[in-house]
Amino acid sequence: MAKLWGGRFAKETDVMVDEFTSSISFDQRMYKEDITGSIAHAGMLAKCGIIAEDEADTIIEGLKGILKDIEAGNFSFEVSLEDIHMNIEQRLTDRIGAVGGKLHTARSRNDQVALDTHMYLKKEIKVIAGLIMDFEKALIEAAEKYPEAIMPGYTHLQRAQPILFPHHMMAYFFMLTRDFSRLNGVWERTDIMPLGAGALAGTTFPIDRHAVADALKFGQVYENSMDAVSDRDYILEFLSFASILMMHLSRISEEVILWSSSEFQFIELDDAHCTGSSIMPQKKNPDIAELVRGKTGRVFGHLMAMLTIAKGLPLAYNKDLQEDKEGLFDAIDTVKFSLTIYAAMIRAMRINQDRMDNAVRNDFSNATDMADYLVKQGLPFRQAHEVVGKCVAYCIEHKKWLMDLTLAEFKQFSELFGEDILEAIKVETCVGARNSFGGTSYAQVKREVSSARTMVAKQQTVLDGYIKGNV
Amino acid sequence: MAKLWGGRFAKETDVMVDEFTSSISFDQRMYKEDITGSIAHAGMLAKCGIIAEDEADTIIEGLKGILKDIEAGNFSFEVSLEDIHMNIEQRLTDRIGAVGGKLHTARSRNDQVALDTHMYLKKEIKVIAGLIMDFEKALIEAAEKYPEAIMPGYTHLQRAQPILFPHHMMAYFFMLTRDFSRLNGVWERTDIMPLGAGALAGTTFPIDRHAVADALKFGQVYENSMDAVSDRDYILEFLSFASILMMHLSRISEEVILWSSSEFQFIELDDAHCTGSSIMPQKKNPDIAELVRGKTGRVFGHLMAMLTIAKGLPLAYNKDLQEDKEGLFDAIDTVKFSLTIYAAMIRAMRINQDRMDNAVRNDFSNATDMADYLVKQGLPFRQAHEVVGKCVAYCIEHKKWLMDLTLAEFKQFSELFGEDILEAIKVETCVGARNSFGGTSYAQVKREVSSARTMVAKQQTVLDGYIKGNV
Amino acid sequence: MAKLWGGRFAKETDVMVDEFTSSISFDQRMYKEDITGSIAHAGMLAKCGIIAEDEADTIIEGLKGILKDIEAGNFSFEVSLEDIHMNIEQRLTDRIGAVGGKLHTARSRNDQVALDTHMYLKKEIKVIAGLIMDFEKALIEAAEKYPEAIMPGYTHLQRAQPILFPHHMMAYFFMLTRDFSRLNGVWERTDIMPLGAGALAGTTFPIDRHAVADALKFGQVYENSMDAVSDRDYILEFLSFASILMMHLSRISEEVILWSSSEFQFIELDDAHCTGSSIMPQKKNPDIAELVRGKTGRVFGHLMAMLTIAKGLPLAYNKDLQEDKEGLFDAIDTVKFSLTIYAAMIRAMRINQDRMDNAVRNDFSNATDMADYLVKQGLPFRQAHEVVGKCVAYCIEHKKWLMDLTLAEFKQFSELFGEDILEAIKVETCVGARNSFGGTSYAQVKREVSSARTMVAKQQTVLDGYIKGNV
Amino acid sequence: MAKLWGGRFAKETDVMVDEFTSSISFDQRMYKEDITGSIAHAGMLAKCGIIAEDEADTIIEGLKGILKDIEAGNFSFEVSLEDIHMNIEQRLTDRIGAVGGKLHTARSRNDQVALDTHMYLKKEIKVIAGLIMDFEKALIEAAEKYPEAIMPGYTHLQRAQPILFPHHMMAYFFMLTRDFSRLNGVWERTDIMPLGAGALAGTTFPIDRHAVADALKFGQVYENSMDAVSDRDYILEFLSFASILMMHLSRISEEVILWSSSEFQFIELDDAHCTGSSIMPQKKNPDIAELVRGKTGRVFGHLMAMLTIAKGLPLAYNKDLQEDKEGLFDAIDTVKFSLTIYAAMIRAMRINQDRMDNAVRNDFSNATDMADYLVKQGLPFRQAHEVVGKCVAYCIEHKKWLMDLTLAEFKQFSELFGEDILEAIKVETCVGARNSFGGTSYAQVKREVSSARTMVAKQQTVLDGYIKGNV
Repeated sequence: MAKLWGGRFAKETDVMVDEFTSSISFDQRMYKEDITGSIAHAGMLAKCGIIAEDEADTIIEGLKGILKDIEAGNFSFEVSLEDIHMNIEQRLTDRIGAVGGKLHTARSRNDQVALDTHMYLKKEIKVIAGLIMDFEKALIEAAEKYPEAIMPGYTHLQRAQPILFPHHMMAYFFMLTRDFSRLNGVWERTDIMPLGAGALAGTTFPIDRHAVADALKFGQVYENSMDAVSDRDYILEFLSFASILMMHLSRISEEVILWSSSEFQFIELDDAHCTGSSIMPQKKNPDIAELVRGKTGRVFGHLMAMLTIAKGLPLAYNKDLQEDKEGLFDAIDTVKFSLTIYAAMIRAMRINQDRMDNAVRNDFSNATDMADYLVKQGLPFRQAHEVVGKCVAYCIEHKKWLMDLTLAEFKQFSELFGEDILEAIKVETCVGARNSFGGTSYAQVKREVSSARTMVAKQQTVLDGYIKGNV
Repeated sequence: MAKLWGGRFAKETDVMVDEFTSSISFDQRMYKEDITGSIAHAGMLAKCGIIAEDEADTIIEGLKGILKDIEAGNFSFEVSLEDIHMNIEQRLTDRIGAVGGKLHTARSRNDQVALDTHMYLKKEIKVIAGLIMDFEKALIEAAEKYPEAIMPGYTHLQRAQPILFPHHMMAYFFMLTRDFSRLNGVWERTDIMPLGAGALAGTTFPIDRHAVADALKFGQVYENSMDAVSDRDYILEFLSFASILMMHLSRISEEVILWSSSEFQFIELDDAHCTGSSIMPQKKNPDIAELVRGKTGRVFGHLMAMLTIAKGLPLAYNKDLQEDKEGLFDAIDTVKFSLTIYAAMIRAMRINQDRMDNAVRNDFSNATDMADYLVKQGLPFRQAHEVVGKCVAYCIEHKKWLMDLTLAEFKQFSELFGEDILEAIKVETCVGARNSFGGTSYAQVKREVSSARTMVAKQQTVLDGYIKGNV
Repeated sequence: MAKLWGGRFAKETDVMVDEFTSSISFDQRMYKEDITGSIAHAGMLAKCGIIAEDEADTIIEGLKGILKDIEAGNFSFEVSLEDIHMNIEQRLTDRIGAVGGKLHTARSRNDQVALDTHMYLKKEIKVIAGLIMDFEKALIEAAEKYPEAIMPGYTHLQRAQPILFPHHMMAYFFMLTRDFSRLNGVWERTDIMPLGAGALAGTTFPIDRHAVADALKFGQVYENSMDAVSDRDYILEFLSFASILMMHLSRISEEVILWSSSEFQFIELDDAHCTGSSIMPQKKNPDIAELVRGKTGRVFGHLMAMLTIAKGLPLAYNKDLQEDKEGLFDAIDTVKFSLTIYAAMIRAMRINQDRMDNAVRNDFSNATDMADYLVKQGLPFRQAHEVVGKCVAYCIEHKKWLMDLTLAEFKQFSELFGEDILEAIKVETCVGARNSFGGTSYAQVKREVSSARTMVAKQQTVLDGYIKGNV
Repeated sequence: MAKLWGGRFAKETDVMVDEFTSSISFDQRMYKEDITGSIAHAGMLAKCGIIAEDEADTIIEGLKGILKDIEAGNFSFEVSLEDIHMNIEQRLTDRIGAVGGKLHTARSRNDQVALDTHMYLKKEIKVIAGLIMDFEKALIEAAEKYPEAIMPGYTHLQRAQPILFPHHMMAYFFMLTRDFSRLNGVWERTDIMPLGAGALAGTTFPIDRHAVADALKFGQVYENSMDAVSDRDYILEFLSFASILMMHLSRISEEVILWSSSEFQFIELDDAHCTGSSIMPQKKNPDIAELVRGKTGRVFGHLMAMLTIAKGLPLAYNKDLQEDKEGLFDAIDTVKFSLTIYAAMIRAMRINQDRMDNAVRNDFSNATDMADYLVKQGLPFRQAHEVVGKCVAYCIEHKKWLMDLTLAEFKQFSELFGEDILEAIKVETCVGARNSFGGTSYAQVKREVSSARTMVAKQQTVLDGYIKGNV
């Protein structure tokens, strides 16, 4: 098929080159943004007197027809037409004749593809923001469902101090709020309108870029045309956001996998979120958590790919930048899928309070409280730490827990121990006493949940802004 | 040397393990943050009645003495004491006796190292924000120095359309403003106070975390203790910021290298920013630009390392996280160095207007304007594109430029060409006519510079906030 | 649809989980390997008396029928059947009844998918090895086509010393030979047969793994079943190989892009390998080179993804490993496409000897030869370097080249210069004199080409081995 | 200080540029290779009549004196002299006068630094090969120490089938053999001598590169000078090797961490390989394993950095390549440290057979054997799988294990069950029966160990070759 840019060329493009350089297989998912953007462009061209009103009407009607065709499945994309822009423009000319050729006045594919991608990402940011909020809510619900469930808190995967299960859930909640906040930064730097930058230098036509921005609900307009066509920061920043978010999900995934093991048995996932084995009939595998953990690497890879692609490119547009989309799209899909399934999985998950309780009682995770007890009797912390360390060694040797010791035994290690030591190192005391701001006490966790509800309400306002900021 | 945590252990640590697990070789650069943080902690402990006022005074005086020793070079760091925290605490006890052991009341190394790192990064963000602004100013100055210098604008490294050199410089300016804005996001999510989270679960002592935050000028306090000790988002986000910034610098580096080549000769770098060859006497190499381009990979590597490290870690602290600092520190150093040297290099760089001018005149980069001319006569853009494409092919065959054609020749391609075609495709016309918002016209570039000045002024306010937000 | 592993489950899988955990969309490309592997397995089961001969015959016939269906396009893959293995097994049972269920005796999906992937990669290694050789040949041809073309050799993108264009081409040839050699290492560590490892621990059936290996032309058998199902080294190693290869292609791409620029104009790519601009009618862009350079990042990303995925996974199989295939497949496709198109592009490329010649004569790249001249008169190299450095500075000031100087001028810098200095620094002398082994002299380049032909012949033997090592 | 290349320059280098471009802080670790290489070069220059014999003797004696000084700590490296090469050459001239300037005849820093790095890496490959072998031996020893210890084998971190602990250890052994084999590939492609390539084009002096290669024990000589100075494949390939090796170590680290947890308690690490907590007196943390897992990310980062650095560089040398060393050196150190400490840790580790035994008996991991039992009675595998799945569900409901069922209960699920079912699903039977090649049976594990011993013996021969291949 004849190329729209073929005038200067003596020879046709190699078919393999067509395939290799064509992007239609993946950029067709931006068809709606491409058409919506073109409609705004055509309207502005007419408003500015660059094309006639009736020409604009014909073009816009043609574009709307194409949109309908695509959504109805009546559109076949051609590889030889390279990309979504050329596919649509060619079809437009087929439909409405030579006037279709006027649509590309005062723009280039360089600013057009930038526009489409900005619009597409804005739409998806809106969706992802909502999914983050939903997962946050699932975490709050999980926290509220088991307000008094005690479990071991770990450092180095060694039992460290008893904590509340809801406190653990809320740790993830607060991570997610930072993801939301980071996404907001991505939004701000995506919400900039590139159209009108032309190939790289602006255009000689008296266009009105702010009018296009208004029509398409953009908050800002690129101030420099070369920057407008070569900027991929918003993609990189989205991939950074997505990488950190997936990292968070990989951490909860690791825990879901651990907690589902026979050794922990802290939780039971719903059958609907697990799969079996083709050979071992007893298996119930936490596949979702494993896959999300695995897919984390995939998103990191996309980030690394895009950074490498952009590195060292001279201004302005270079074909390398065509490689920006597949990774972005895949990262979007992965993040959406992961958040959705995680919200469902956490909601359907049951915890096994007996196992958690057992784990926390047959353990030395109350040792810090024993040291704190001594400190409160006046011993410097470092000495208290030493005393308790020896006491733990004694227990291990005699196969006892701290709660099993007699007062006489306690006193062998320090005269400062009194009758109240057993009360002081009871699991419930340990948990309840960690009442410093942000600590695991019952009161603090209640405060966290309440603070979380307020945060989500504020996020809703931000989300409403995103909804308004999309066409 | 006896470990501060050795009570429970039967055997001493392997020397090699000491070396392998010790972080003192790199975390000593946070000595000031560690001491300042400890002073605030001790003060708060006294205020809350957890230790006595005079104990706090003794501790604080001891810490100040250690700070003086370190800054005077009278402090030798011990590998066997693992890290900066233990080195300082041990020295404190050596100086003031057992009361030194009270400093660690109600805190853990997990929240202490988090505090130090947050403080350290906040300090460096402040510095880097200033360096970004200085580089931005250097770009504005470069733009103002050559207001009318025309050069070829490139896409695909092919000459595309003539542009103003200052327009090219301003493209980098606007990239930098996004870096500044992203850095602001990093600041917001770094400016959260972790101390008081204890090992992971908070503390049983009646501490006042908000008082510590005030003393250390933090804007927020972590709401969840587990999150506080395991969060490394701020490091990852800084590394993402740094990667994108370095990517920008790698792009200008590529251009500086190209422009310094014999083939381009658009610029001349100052001798002070170049080096020679050990073998080829004629060489003057743009080493700085090459190194900055190379160091971009280094920062990407640190980002990838940290993402990988954090991936899949269960809560809360794991020793893997000790690997967070070297990459961060190196990225900070690299970014600071690169920005500083770049500001100097751009300021000292001279441009070769003759070469630029020559490049832009012996070229077809006015072809778009020729097409635009036809469009303004009413030809649809696609047809105009085709006409000009054929005309270019004709010129190549006859070894002419478009400006060399006679009206008769023009008219062979289209009857729409008139006398004014030569004026319309003159380089100065091409540049001046791209007067759309953000285009390369003289007027637009003036507007860009003025807008840039305003932006820098706003950034100054942000920077002032950072200065106030550091101790 | 009922799951083949559903016996233990009370509830059906969530549809979204099906989609998320299903791999059929991408692993269907291994259908042939899956069927061929199953046929070998069934044959072995019968030979070992584990199933009856006629059962094996029925199964094998069924499998062959399915293969035909798939290749004829008469097979619809079901997402709910998860993967290629289950899709084929289910269809088998539909075709031949319950006896189909015997096929999965003594194997698991864990070893089955490993087998398929090993077979698939072996097949593709064979293809890629051939493509490397073809590109190598294209480079040799390019070297032979222009045996005396001189161009500037660059370091730091500054003209350094004159070289032969064929020498430059051969530099890439030798890089490619290392790629070939690395690929050979990948082959060796891919050519290991995993089937029979079962889920992770081997099987209780008296199977004969070596018979399967023979049938499928594998050179080795995994010695440890847990290693067999969790090993992804061969994928990582392939991705490392592919990354280094693409890095090489990114370097030649950078040069093709530079050389195609107006500033260099050293080469002219065939129209068939370039594309135009939607807006600028004069543009002829080296898209292929740009895209290959861009796709380099994509392959790096896949490597990083897979490393991250594998990191920290406990033995044996984890679902994360399902993420191994998409990146591998995409890297294979990218490498194949890039090598193919590059061989064609280099073959069709023309060089512009006039431009190269001009570049090398109007330059100081003969300065080293001038220093060498002085060294041969007895001056220590360091002093000679200094003398020539000053002479170059003098020329720059007086706008001359070294060849333009009079003997009197030469003697101002050193008395050691004689009449023969001009002959000594002539471009042809400079090139011809670099006759050290591997240098750029005419004789050395001839030797390189001859050595290269021998290397390719040896590679052919290796390739023949690959061909024999595939079913 | 005056630069050795300063002749052409009007102005001195900026001090900050010196610091930024200098590599002496890290390349000084190659001092020995630099001097040894220079001695070989000087000897060859004399042998070829390029310098006089007595000049060579003076130079060589001077170099030997410098080597002694450095090793005695009597050498201060100067940043302004940029790198190890210039530091040594300057000192040489200080010691022996102007004749020192003859050393750099017929070479450039570009080939010199390449030579040093090749030599340095060859030396370290030799060391690392030995460390891999030692760790392999530690794994064999661990396997031999507990020949009959049964533990659960996991997939998806769910108990899958019982395995022998030594089988698990041997899985890591076989991974390590592939690392060794990959390292061998790195050796082959590092063992190529670059000196004599000059800056990029060879040299005009009649040097003998093969003589230098012989003197320095290199197996091959680069055939193309441009390739010789710009090749960094060997570094990339080493980093790929190191990344995969570290990935293996990260996997065993994950298991060591899991097995050390209270929930698993399968192993007890030696106190010498653990550390405690500054706050929690009871803690004994598997820091080594965590750090090695963390450091995996660091090595991945170095690989990614180097790939990014090399991407898109035109030939030949560019300053970006100076960034090749720090990551390489750090990766070497990390790999050496990790292998050494791991060999020690595995040797000192004790396993807790009771806990393993308990885990394997209170579990359904014999379910596959129950299915196999039915298959052996003639039931197709898929149906057997279904029967057992239902039986497991029944057990879960009635809180029983399969071994607890009566024959009557068994028969409820299938009439094919006989008296011998209990014997067939006993843990020892399950393990012993997996006697397929590479399976976990006692006999197979014995075979694996014996095969492993043979492999290590073969590796010794390879290692001996490395030892001979170093100066």
